Amino acid sequence: MGVYLLGSSYYPEWWPEEEWKRDFAKMAALGLNAVRMGEFAWSWYEPREGEFHFEAMRRAVALAAEEGIVTLMCTTTAVCPPWLYQKYPEVKGGNDHGLYGFGGRKGNCLSSDVFLEYARKITEEQAKVFANDKNVVGWQLDNEPGFPFVCYDPCCEKKFRKWLERRYGTIEALNRAWFTMMWSNVYNSFDEIRLPVNAAEGGWSPGMKLDYRRFFSDNFNNLLSEEARIIRAQGSKQFIFTNWPGANWSVSCEDAMSYLDYSAWDNYVSVPVNDDYHVQLRSSMEHDLCRRLSNGKQRFLIAEQCAAPHANAAPEAVRAQTWLDVAHGAFGNIFFEFRVPTGGVEQNYHSILNADGTYNRCEPVIRKLAADLKAHYSLLDGAETVSPAAAVYSYQNSWATPGWVVDGPYDEDFFEAHGGFKNALRQNMDVIFPSDDFSKYKLVVAPNLMILSDEERARLEQYVRDGGVLVINPVADTRGESNLIREARVPALFDGQCGAHSVASVSSADMAKQQSAAGERVSVRFNDGEEYDVAGTLYELAVEDDAEVFAEYTCGRLKGKAAGVVKRIGRGALVLYASDARNYRYYEALARVANRFAEIPPLLDAPDGVIVSSRQKDGETYLIAVNAKNSPAELTLDGPLFDVLRQCEISGKVRIDGLDVLLAKKRS
Amino acid sequence: MGVYLLGSSYYPEWWPEEEWKRDFAKMAALGLNAVRMGEFAWSWYEPREGEFHFEAMRRAVALAAEEGIVTLMCTTTAVCPPWLYQKYPEVKGGNDHGLYGFGGRKGNCLSSDVFLEYARKITEEQAKVFANDKNVVGWQLDNEPGFPFVCYDPCCEKKFRKWLERRYGTIEALNRAWFTMMWSNVYNSFDEIRLPVNAAEGGWSPGMKLDYRRFFSDNFNNLLSEEARIIRAQGSKQFIFTNWPGANWSVSCEDAMSYLDYSAWDNYVSVPVNDDYHVQLRSSMEHDLCRRLSNGKQRFLIAEQCAAPHANAAPEAVRAQTWLDVAHGAFGNIFFEFRVPTGGVEQNYHSILNADGTYNRCEPVIRKLAADLKAHYSLLDGAETVSPAAAVYSYQNSWATPGWVVDGPYDEDFFEAHGGFKNALRQNMDVIFPSDDFSKYKLVVAPNLMILSDEERARLEQYVRDGGVLVINPVADTRGESNLIREARVPALFDGQCGAHSVASVSSADMAKQQSAAGERVSVRFNDGEEYDVAGTLYELAVEDDAEVFAEYTCGRLKGKAAGVVKRIGRGALVLYASDARNYRYYEALARVANRFAEIPPLLDAPDGVIVSSRQKDGETYLIAVNAKNSPAELTLDGPLFDVLRQCEISGKVRIDGLDVLLAKKRS
Amino acid sequence: MGVYLLGSSYYPEWWPEEEWKRDFAKMAALGLNAVRMGEFAWSWYEPREGEFHFEAMRRAVALAAEEGIVTLMCTTTAVCPPWLYQKYPEVKGGNDHGLYGFGGRKGNCLSSDVFLEYARKITEEQAKVFANDKNVVGWQLDNEPGFPFVCYDPCCEKKFRKWLERRYGTIEALNRAWFTMMWSNVYNSFDEIRLPVNAAEGGWSPGMKLDYRRFFSDNFNNLLSEEARIIRAQGSKQFIFTNWPGANWSVSCEDAMSYLDYSAWDNYVSVPVNDDYHVQLRSSMEHDLCRRLSNGKQRFLIAEQCAAPHANAAPEAVRAQTWLDVAHGAFGNIFFEFRVPTGGVEQNYHSILNADGTYNRCEPVIRKLAADLKAHYSLLDGAETVSPAAAVYSYQNSWATPGWVVDGPYDEDFFEAHGGFKNALRQNMDVIFPSDDFSKYKLVVAPNLMILSDEERARLEQYVRDGGVLVINPVADTRGESNLIREARVPALFDGQCGAHSVASVSSADMAKQQSAAGERVSVRFNDGEEYDVAGTLYELAVEDDAEVFAEYTCGRLKGKAAGVVKRIGRGALVLYASDARNYRYYEALARVANRFAEIPPLLDAPDGVIVSSRQKDGETYLIAVNAKNSPAELTLDGPLFDVLRQCEISGKVRIDGLDVLLAKKRS
Repeated sequence: MGVYLLGSSYYPEWWPEEEWKRDFAKMAALGLNAVRMGEFAWSWYEPREGEFHFEAMRRAVALAAEEGIVTLMCTTTAVCPPWLYQKYPEVKGGNDHGLYGFGGRKGNCLSSDVFLEYARKITEEQAKVFANDKNVVGWQLDNEPGFPFVCYDPCCEKKFRKWLERRYGTIEALNRAWFTMMWSNVYNSFDEIRLPVNAAEGGWSPGMKLDYRRFFSDNFNNLLSEEARIIRAQGSKQFIFTNWPGANWSVSCEDAMSYLDYSAWDNYVSVPVNDDYHVQLRSSMEHDLCRRLSNGKQRFLIAEQCAAPHANAAPEAVRAQTWLDVAHGAFGNIFFEFRVPTGGVEQNYHSILNADGTYNRCEPVIRKLAADLKAHYSLLDGAETVSPAAAVYSYQNSWATPGWVVDGPYDEDFFEAHGGFKNALRQNMDVIFPSDDFSKYKLVVAPNLMILSDEERARLEQYVRDGGVLVINPVADTRGESNLIREARVPALFDGQCGAHSVASVSSADMAKQQSAAGERVSVRFNDGEEYDVAGTLYELAVEDDAEVFAEYTCGRLKGKAAGVVKRIGRGALVLYASDARNYRYYEALARVANRFAEIPPLLDAPDGVIVSSRQKDGETYLIAVNAKNSPAELTLDGPLFDVLRQCEISGKVRIDGLDVLLAKKRS
Repeated sequence: MGVYLLGSSYYPEWWPEEEWKRDFAKMAALGLNAVRMGEFAWSWYEPREGEFHFEAMRRAVALAAEEGIVTLMCTTTAVCPPWLYQKYPEVKGGNDHGLYGFGGRKGNCLSSDVFLEYARKITEEQAKVFANDKNVVGWQLDNEPGFPFVCYDPCCEKKFRKWLERRYGTIEALNRAWFTMMWSNVYNSFDEIRLPVNAAEGGWSPGMKLDYRRFFSDNFNNLLSEEARIIRAQGSKQFIFTNWPGANWSVSCEDAMSYLDYSAWDNYVSVPVNDDYHVQLRSSMEHDLCRRLSNGKQRFLIAEQCAAPHANAAPEAVRAQTWLDVAHGAFGNIFFEFRVPTGGVEQNYHSILNADGTYNRCEPVIRKLAADLKAHYSLLDGAETVSPAAAVYSYQNSWATPGWVVDGPYDEDFFEAHGGFKNALRQNMDVIFPSDDFSKYKLVVAPNLMILSDEERARLEQYVRDGGVLVINPVADTRGESNLIREARVPALFDGQCGAHSVASVSSADMAKQQSAAGERVSVRFNDGEEYDVAGTLYELAVEDDAEVFAEYTCGRLKGKAAGVVKRIGRGALVLYASDARNYRYYEALARVANRFAEIPPLLDAPDGVIVSSRQKDGETYLIAVNAKNSPAELTLDGPLFDVLRQCEISGKVRIDGLDVLLAKKRS
Repeated sequence: MGVYLLGSSYYPEWWPEEEWKRDFAKMAALGLNAVRMGEFAWSWYEPREGEFHFEAMRRAVALAAEEGIVTLMCTTTAVCPPWLYQKYPEVKGGNDHGLYGFGGRKGNCLSSDVFLEYARKITEEQAKVFANDKNVVGWQLDNEPGFPFVCYDPCCEKKFRKWLERRYGTIEALNRAWFTMMWSNVYNSFDEIRLPVNAAEGGWSPGMKLDYRRFFSDNFNNLLSEEARIIRAQGSKQFIFTNWPGANWSVSCEDAMSYLDYSAWDNYVSVPVNDDYHVQLRSSMEHDLCRRLSNGKQRFLIAEQCAAPHANAAPEAVRAQTWLDVAHGAFGNIFFEFRVPTGGVEQNYHSILNADGTYNRCEPVIRKLAADLKAHYSLLDGAETVSPAAAVYSYQNSWATPGWVVDGPYDEDFFEAHGGFKNALRQNMDVIFPSDDFSKYKLVVAPNLMILSDEERARLEQYVRDGGVLVINPVADTRGESNLIREARVPALFDGQCGAHSVASVSSADMAKQQSAAGERVSVRFNDGEEYDVAGTLYELAVEDDAEVFAEYTCGRLKGKAAGVVKRIGRGALVLYASDARNYRYYEALARVANRFAEIPPLLDAPDGVIVSSRQKDGETYLIAVNAKNSPAELTLDGPLFDVLRQCEISGKVRIDGLDVLLAKKRS
C-alpha cells in the first residue's frame, strides 16, 4: 500500500451521529489515516431478529473517508444480542461454575449450531454491504479469539465427542492415546466422554487435556474461517485478519493462516518505564511470531495499542513502541481507543481524547509519529526481515504444558529465551514452527520442545549435522503427538546421545525451599563466572565424554554439577541446557555460548536497552534502533549511515535519546 | 430516658428455664440494666407452621424485669426455621455458587413473596405480644442487615426486572444508563435481563452493578420497614432500630431513617492494643455516621460490643471503648454476649460469664463502668454534638466503586480521611450526606465524591463561594447518577477550574512495582517536609496559575510534580489532593493544610492517641477525652475544668492513665 | 513370614503382555520379592457390564511367581468404569461445585446402593479367582481411602439422614447435640436435614460438622469391611490391609481394625535433604500409629514409598527411609512405582525404571537394601516395640477441629508434639487412643485432647494419681462427645485444678500482627533460658499456688506471664503447657520438663538427627539408629554392641555416615 495505517478504534454506535464528523476530523487533524469500526456492533446492526440496519455504519464509513480515513471493518461475533440468548439459551457457553450469565462478551458457545447459524447470517448481511466498499480496506474477524479459554456446555460436549471420533476413528485408539487403562477410564464408546469439569481426585489425563485444547482451537478457527469465506464470497478484495490477544495462546494461529491474509495482535505490553525494557522483548517475540504467521507477506498489523501510557511513563513511549512495531514488520497500528467510553465495562479506558474532548498529553508525540511515518514509511513498505537465528514455537507443546490458561510455563520460557537470544545477538530473530525449514538459520533455539513428530526430529538432527547450532533442554523429543512419554532417554533426540542425559530432576521451587536456610541462590554459573537465577525444573545430567560442560549448578546436591553441555555433531553443534529460567539474562548467556559456534555478527554495536532490527528492500538495508530506556544511549557505527528521520549522514559515536529512534539506511 | 442502657444479649431459648433467674441476677449484680433477647428465635416461637409460643419469652422478660433489667426485643427474620424451607425452597437465596444450602443464617431470599408473607406473620404475632409490654423498651429489627451481600436466585431475578422497570420506565432508558451499546448488550425488554452471576470475559457494566446494589439495599429496607409498620400498628411506643454491621455498607441507612427511630451498629472494632488506636478512629467514624442517621435525635445505640478483649489487650480497654461510644452520642451498649454458647456456629464466643459460670476477667472494669454511668450519665443524656467540620459520605459512591463486598476502596479511604481530619483537628466531626446542608461547617472533606447530582454540585460550589473550605480529589463530580462518566475535565466541579486538573493517572501498585528497584517510596511530601505513603490512584495534575501547590510526589516520573493544590474561590478555599492514601496520617497533614483556611481551634490540647469529643446540653459543655493508648498521656488545659468522674477541679497539666477517661465539665 | 516384603507396584494392564516377563525379571534381579497389582483395574477385569476377565491377571501373578515374586492383590473400587457411570449417574459423588465430572479417581459415591452393589460384584468375582491363589499373599482394599474428603450428592444426603436417625434416635436428641436453637435451625424431622454445602453467612454448626466427618468415615469403613468379608467368604487366608494416605486423617483407622489384619500407609514424606529430618519425624509418627492399628501384631506395611528421590537428595536416602520403616515395625515396603507411566494423570511418575528401561540412579542403593534385609530381617521379624512413652491421638478431636481437609491444626500439632517428645527422649514412642490403657507408660503427651468421655477422663486422672506423667494443654476435656462445650473451667480435667486455668486467650496470628512493630517474637522462654516460637492459641493462665511455672511468654501483654506449669498430683505429675507450637523443638523442651518427673533414659546417646528405635524379640534387644542427616554423626555407646550389618562388635564412639544405618544387637 505504501502508506502506514496509523489509526484508532472508534465505536460510532456509542455516540450521537451528529458528533461523528467532529471526531473523524479530530483524528485527521492529528495525522491518523485509519479507523477500526464495528467490533461488537451486532445489537446495532440487528436490534431484533432479522431486522438488519447497516445504513448508519455506511454513513460512518463515508464520513471517515471524507476526512481521508480508511476503515477496517469488524465482524461482530464476539458478542451476541440479548434477543438471541433469550430465544436460544444454548448460544451461551460456560465455565467450571456452569453456564455463563448474560453480560460481558466472548461467552458465546462456538459449538452451538444455532449460534453458528446466526453468526453466519449477520456476517453475510454485513459482507453484502461492505465487501466492495472502497473505503473499507480490511476486515477484522471477531475479537481476540481464544478468550475466555474454556467453553463447557452441552453443545461443546457433543461436538467434542464428534471431534474425537473424527480424530481417532475408534474408541480403542482414543483409549490408547489417553492411556485410559490408568484408573479404569477405558471408554466403550465416544458417548461416554464428558467434558473435563469438576474433577474428582487426580484430574484429567494429559492426553485428554491436550485434545480439549486442540478441539477448542479448532472450534475458533472453524468460526473464523467461515466468516472469511462469507466475506470473500461477496467478492471482497479487502485483506482479512483477526486481532489475536497474543499469538502464542489458546488458538493455533498457525492453522489460521489457511484463511487469513495477515496476522495481527493487540499489543498491550506496557510502554517503557524507567530503564526496564523487559516487556519490549515480549512485544518483539509477538512481532516475530506474527511476521511468521502473515502467510509469507513478512508483515503484520497491530490491531490495538494503548492510546496513552499511564502517568509514570513518558508520552514519548508511544512513539518508541510504535517504531518497535515497524522495525519488526508492522504495516499499521490502531490505537485503542479514540474517545473515552462513558459507560459499559470498559468505562474510562485510556483514549486519545480526554473526557472533555481535548487531546490527551501524547498529542505532540503522536503528531510527530504520524508525520515521520507519512514522510518515510514508503521506504520500508514491502521490506523483508532477514534473520540469522530463529526460535522454535509449538502450539502443541504450549498446550501440553500445564498452566496454559494465562501464560503457561512453556510460553513464559519461550518468551524469555527468544528475548535473551535476540538481545544478546543484537540481531533479527525469526519465530518458526517445528515443521519449518531450519536450513537458512545459523542458530536455532528450541526451548521445551517436548512433542516432536518423527519427521520433525529427523529434520532437526539433519540441521545440526549440516552445520546448524541447535539449543535444546532435556525435555526435547520426550513425547509423541498424543502427549505420551517416549520410552527413551531424556532427551531423546539423537538417540539420547545429546552430550548428556538426565538422571534425575528437582523443581526449582523445592530446591529453593530446601536451600533457603543455607542462603543459596538457585542458579547456574557459566564458565565466565557469571551467575544467573534459574527456574522450572533442574535436571541432573550424566555427561558424555565428548561433551563440553559450559555451566554448573550453584546449589544443594547439584552444586558443581553440570548445568549445560555442548557437543559437536557433524558440522554443527548441539547445546543442551539443563534448567529453565524465567529470566532473559540467563538466555543471553546461553546465546553467547551458542554463538561461539554460530558466529553471528551483531547488526549494530548497541548498548543494553537499545533494540536493533533491520529490514531489507530493493537491495537496501535499513537499520532501526529503538532506545527502550528513558536515558540516552550511544551507538558505535563501524561505517557511515544515512539517518532517514533527520536526513543526514552519521558515523562513529551516535547518541540516541531516551525513547528515541534511529532509522538509518546502510550504504549498499 | 436519663439512664444509660448498659446490658448484654441473652438467648433464653438456649438454656434451661430454671437457670434464667440466676443469669439475670448475675447481670444485675454486675450493674447491667438491659438485655437484648429474641434475635433468631423464630424456631422457638413457631416450632411448626402456625403454632405460636411466646409464653416462655414473656416469662423471660418478666424475670429480667424483676432484676431491674429492661428488654430490647428482636424480630426474628434473619433466619428461617427448617419447616419453612422444607415447604417452600424458594425462601432461600443464593450466591454465585447457586442456591444456599440450609444452615447458617441470613441466606433468606428477600424477594420471595412467600418469605415476606411468613416474616410478616411471625412479626405480627410477636408484636401483638410485646408491643405494649412496659418491660420492653425497644425493638431491634432483624439482625445485621446487609449480610450476605448478594442474593442470586430466581425470585430476585424477577423482582430485579420489576425494580428496573419502575426505575427506568422504558428499556431504552435503561440501555442508555447502562451503556449497553458496548458489547451488544442492548435489551429489547426487561425480561431479557439476568442477574450478574458467572460473567463471561469482561463482566458486568458499572451501571448494572450500581443498580444491583441499589436493588439489594431497597430489598432489605422493604423488609425492615414492613416490620416497623407492623410493630407500630400494634400501638407500640417502644423505639425501633436495627443493628447495622457497620453503617457504611451494603444497605442505605440513609433510606432507613424513614422508618427507624434510632440507628445502632455492632461495634466489633478491636479494643486498643499497645499504642495503636487506629481502629478507634474507625469506631469514631461509625459513631459519627450513626449519629447522623438517628433522625435528628443526635444519639444512637451500640447494639453489640465485644464482652471481653483477647489476652493481648487489657480489661480496661472495654471501659475505654464504651466511653468512646458515649463521647460520640451512644445512649446504650449491649455486650455480646452474656453466656458462652456451648454449641452452634458461635460456639465459645467471648462472653461475660466464663464457661464455668464465673465472671470473666473484665468484671471489675465493667462494674466501674456501670457505676460511673449510673452516677453521671444523666448529665449527658439528651446532649448534642456540635461539630465545626464534616466528612461527606455517599452510599451511591460507595456502591459505584469496585470491591464493595467487604470494604471497598471508597469506604476505606473515607474512614482514613474522616479519622485523619478528626485526629488532626482534635475536634468533633460530623458525617453528612451530599444532600445535607453544608453551611454550618467551616470545613468539609469529601473524598472520592465521584457521583454528584446537579443540585448537589451547585450547593457544594456555593458553600465554597460563601466561605467554606472544601477538600476534594480529582474524581469529584466526574460521574452522573447512572454511573456514567461526565464528558468534562477531571475533576468536573467548578467547571473544571479547581486549581488543577488531571492529565494522566497511574495506580499506586504499578508505581510501587516499577519504582521498587530504585527503592523509592510511593509517597507525597508536603511543604513542611513531611512525607506520607499514598495508595489507590495517583493523578498527574496540570496546575492553574492562581493555585498554590502544597505537596509534591516523591517517586518515578511524578517526582517533584504537584500532588495537591489549594485555590481560593470566593470567600472560601478549595483543597484538591491528587492521590488517595489508606493512611490517616496523610489525611492529618491534609487537614492541617485545610485548617490554615478554616482556622478551627482544638477542643483540647491533647497528645496523639487521646481522642477528644464534646457534648453540649442545657448550655453546658462536657469534654470527653479517652486515652486510647496503654501508656499515660498528659493534657494541657487552658483553664480550669470540673472532673466529673473524680468530682474535683482540674487545670494546667492533667495526667490521664493508659485507657483511662476524662469527663470534664467546662465552666459555662 | 520371616522374609521382608520388598517390592514395587506394577500395572500389567498398562503394558503389552509380552513385556511382563522382562519387567518381573528386572524386579527380581534387583532383589525385589513382592509386587502389588490390580489397583484401579476394574475396566480391565470388567470391560463391559457382567463380562469378567481375570485370565490376564492370573497369568501376571504366575509370571511374577516364576521370578520368585509374591503378589499383593488390590480390589478395584477406588475407580469405576465409564459404562457404570453412563448407566447410573448416581454412582458419582460430588463436592461443593456439584457432582463430579467423569475422570480422575475416587469420586465414587459411597452412599449409592448401585455403586455398592457393583463394587460387591466385581470384588466377589475377583475374590473367587485369587482368594486361594498361593502366590497372592495379601489383599489391599481400595486405594487411599478418605480422598477426596467430601461426598456431596443426593445419595449421601439420604444416607446421612438415616445415619443421624440411627445415631440419635429422635430429632430432639439431634437438636440438642447440634445446639440448633442457635439461629433457628431446629429440625422437626430428619428429612429436613441438608448436606453442609454452600453455607449462607456463618456456616454449619460444630455438631453437624463433626457428625458429617463421622458419617463420611463410616461410609468408607462400610465399603471396605464389606470387601474384606467377601474375600474371607471365599476361604482366603491371605492378610488384608488398605493403604491409608496417612493414618491420621479422614477415615477412622481405629474403627477399621475390626476388619483389617494389618495397617499400612503410603509413605510419601520426602526423603532427607541436607540436614533437615523434620519429615522423618512425621513418618515416625505415622509408623507408630500404624503399629497401634495393626491389631496387636506390632507390625505394619508401607504400601507405597517413593521409588526415587529428586535430584537434590542422595540415592542413599531411599535406604535410610526404608530402615526407618523397619525400625518402627514395617514388615514390607512397596515402591511406587516400577515403570514410568507413559500417559494418564500420573504420567512420568518417579519409577524404578527410567523411561528407557534402565534402572534409575538408586539401583546400587536398592540392591544393598534388598541384600541386607534378605540377610538379617529374620532377626527382627515378629519383634516387638516396647515404649516407655506415648502420645494420645483421637480421631474425634481431629475431626472436631476446623481445617481437617488437609492437615488440620490438631493433626499438625499432634505430629510436632509426637516428634518432639520422641526426639528429645531418644526413645520409642507409642501412639495410643484415649480408650487405651495408659498404665504401662511413664509419660503420656495428649495435645489438644478437647473431647473426652467421662470414662476416659477418669482413667486419665487415675493414671496421674498412680504415678504417671501427663502432658496436656488448656483445651483438655473441654468438650463432650457431641462437640458441645463443657460448662466448666478450662481445662476441665481434675475438676479444673490442673495447676492453672485459662482466663483469656489470643491467637498467635493476632499477637504476631500486633507485636510486629515492636519486633517481638511470638514465643515462650523456658526456665533454662531457651526460647521457642509458638503458634495457634496462646492462653493466659491463672496459676495455682502449688504449681511450678516452667516457662513464660515473651511478647505483648503476656510478656513474663506463665506459659506452662507443672503440678504434682498423687504420685504423678501433670504438665500443662499454655500454647501450641507448630514446632517440634518446642515440644522437645516440653519433653525435657516432663522427663524430670518421668525419668526415662535414652536408648542411645545419639546426636541430633540420628533417630533411634529398638525392637525386642526372644529376649534380645535390637537397636536401630538411622542417620537422617547427610553428614556423619557419632554415637557414644555405654557398652559393647554387635553390629549386625557389618557383623562385628562395636563400642565407645561409633561413627555413622550420612544417611547410613546401624542395626545393633544388645547383649542380653
